[in-house]
Amino acid sequence: MRYALSLAPGEDAAHKAGLIALEQTVELPRALLTAALAERMSGRIETVQRTGPRRALVELSYSLEAIGDDLPQCLNLLFGNISLKPGIRVVGIDWPAALVASLGGPGHGIGGLRALTGAAGRALLCTALKPMGLSAVELAQRCEAFARGGIDIIKDDHGLADQPAAPFAERLARCQAAVTRANAASGGRSLYFPNVTAPAAQLPKRLAAACTAGCRGVLISPWLVGLDTLRLIRDEYGLAILAHPALTGSLFARHAGMAPELVLGDLFRLAGADAVIYPNAGGRFDFSAATCVRINYHLRRPLGSLRTSLPAPAGGMDVATAGHWLCRYGPDTLLLIGGSLYAQGDLERGAAALRRAVEALAP
Amino acid sequence: MRYALSLAPGEDAAHKAGLIALEQTVELPRALLTAALAERMSGRIETVQRTGPRRALVELSYSLEAIGDDLPQCLNLLFGNISLKPGIRVVGIDWPAALVASLGGPGHGIGGLRALTGAAGRALLCTALKPMGLSAVELAQRCEAFARGGIDIIKDDHGLADQPAAPFAERLARCQAAVTRANAASGGRSLYFPNVTAPAAQLPKRLAAACTAGCRGVLISPWLVGLDTLRLIRDEYGLAILAHPALTGSLFARHAGMAPELVLGDLFRLAGADAVIYPNAGGRFDFSAATCVRINYHLRRPLGSLRTSLPAPAGGMDVATAGHWLCRYGPDTLLLIGGSLYAQGDLERGAAALRRAVEALAP
Repeated sequence: MRYALSLAPGEDAAHKAGLIALEQTVELPRALLTAALAERMSGRIETVQRTGPRRALVELSYSLEAIGDDLPQCLNLLFGNISLKPGIRVVGIDWPAALVASLGGPGHGIGGLRALTGAAGRALLCTALKPMGLSAVELAQRCEAFARGGIDIIKDDHGLADQPAAPFAERLARCQAAVTRANAASGGRSLYFPNVTAPAAQLPKRLAAACTAGCRGVLISPWLVGLDTLRLIRDEYGLAILAHPALTGSLFARHAGMAPELVLGDLFRLAGADAVIYPNAGGRFDFSAATCVRINYHLRRPLGSLRTSLPAPAGGMDVATAGHWLCRYGPDTLLLIGGSLYAQGDLERGAAALRRAVEALAP
Repeated sequence: MRYALSLAPGEDAAHKAGLIALEQTVELPRALLTAALAERMSGRIETVQRTGPRRALVELSYSLEAIGDDLPQCLNLLFGNISLKPGIRVVGIDWPAALVASLGGPGHGIGGLRALTGAAGRALLCTALKPMGLSAVELAQRCEAFARGGIDIIKDDHGLADQPAAPFAERLARCQAAVTRANAASGGRSLYFPNVTAPAAQLPKRLAAACTAGCRGVLISPWLVGLDTLRLIRDEYGLAILAHPALTGSLFARHAGMAPELVLGDLFRLAGADAVIYPNAGGRFDFSAATCVRINYHLRRPLGSLRTSLPAPAGGMDVATAGHWLCRYGPDTLLLIGGSLYAQGDLERGAAALRRAVEALAP
């Protein structure tokens, strides 16, 4: 595990690395440990490299015994207590093969999502049902128009929960019926992904309802409900998972936190996300194009025998610039376009034009 | 809701506030909304106040209809998408009475923890079983010594999960038996709180096992498993909840994130934490004494009809300085002392000395 450290005046990089190695495991000073236990359980400093007057890159290794195959404990070991200390950024993780295998990754992956949607050889299209405040009937009308236009995955806006304007159960029934109708009319295979981000006591009911209604996948915000929830959805419900980055942003400070590709790339994928939404460069948010490319790479790179995950750049993506991003990111991409599709007024026609554009761009 | 904004060159505070109001609710530009829907669902700017050349304090209000009584959606509305934008810090929340009532807060609270432990009129004492890597037998020996010495709550270190060295089920059985034995010998009422932070599929089993074993409370890290898990533990298991701040630290940047007293104070308490661990000033972490006092205040202040929560300052707290902090924080405090108790060698004697010191300090 590699950390970029910012050092306070007089702070020594190796000393700071040594404190991290204890803090994240045994949580006792070295003097209170037997040599055998320190050797077995405490993190080990592999390298310390000064990278600037007040900056260093250090590499630590941990025993897998400290994690078991427990994802919350893995998160805790990665960044639990040291999230409360200044000047520590996790910038690289070499995942042990055994941990990769036991966490398991996507249940469907890019290939699975292509099979579910029938989308071959081209980028996939996604949009969001919004705004919150519309009735379930109105959202379902939008859902039907998008499906007729050929959007592959139509998801709830991630802020649609169980509000009185469009309660979850009614929205689920109406939107799933809408895509079914549209598919029957068009011969398409659009999918509706309801947002199942929910209170802990409600989550199993929402997932069961999504299965019963015939949904093949769901939207969820892992940082709002716990990352390991993804594994539960994968293992107990078999639904495809589209993961939303809500609340992760605080992790992505310049000199603290964790690198975005480790969270939205590695961790989301390891936990089972088949597709991962992130704020694309040039939109309403702040990620650089280089960061986005790194996230794409971490979602799609070889990692044990894990399936790959589909990057879903979003957040102010534009119909006009979709081609630019597809050329840059390649066809294994889920283009999530919301607002600019709504801005075109006729949703079905706007969706169909986008679908044609994406098909024309297929390699 | 009050946000402290940092402004980029040329960025206007009211404009930035307006974008937040849309981003956190309808996620569409104002021009794509009907006037009625914008009025009903979008956040509303109440005040905008310049506080420096590049700084402003803005106040927004939201319709409760955007949340319902859903804690994950509440978190999302508070800081979901805007966590991904720079220069926004949530610094104040006026909780609506209906939301406070529906979230519900602690199931036991300070009064309940005093009743469970028999600790009246004095501060309570807590310590942690560690280090990871010891066997369940060894941890249980430590547990028994602490209980005989009069520590009120003996919790697992938050990194103890289900590792092979001390598997959860065996640790639970041995440590709970150890406190029972010690209590029988001493006439005390020490409690053992196992760490139930666990994969989503395991969590219900661990909670049920804790109940069956006779535990009255548990330790959990809400940010590792989802904050709303606390409400589930409160409502479905009735266990007292000691909450750990692991992974929350990234939220507490100087000019971004959320103020610590809103997360570790308000949110943890609203979700049901009976006691909240935080890194005390002067220890291994970075909170100022003023921040700690604010967290204490938010845990104990009147808030609807919610029970109060017990602040548990920790993180390098020292036997020698415990008196200082108790004078400052008052008797409604759970002193969490780990390493410095271990440093004394004889755990029972060290614990007993600490207990006498705390009793002597009772008002």
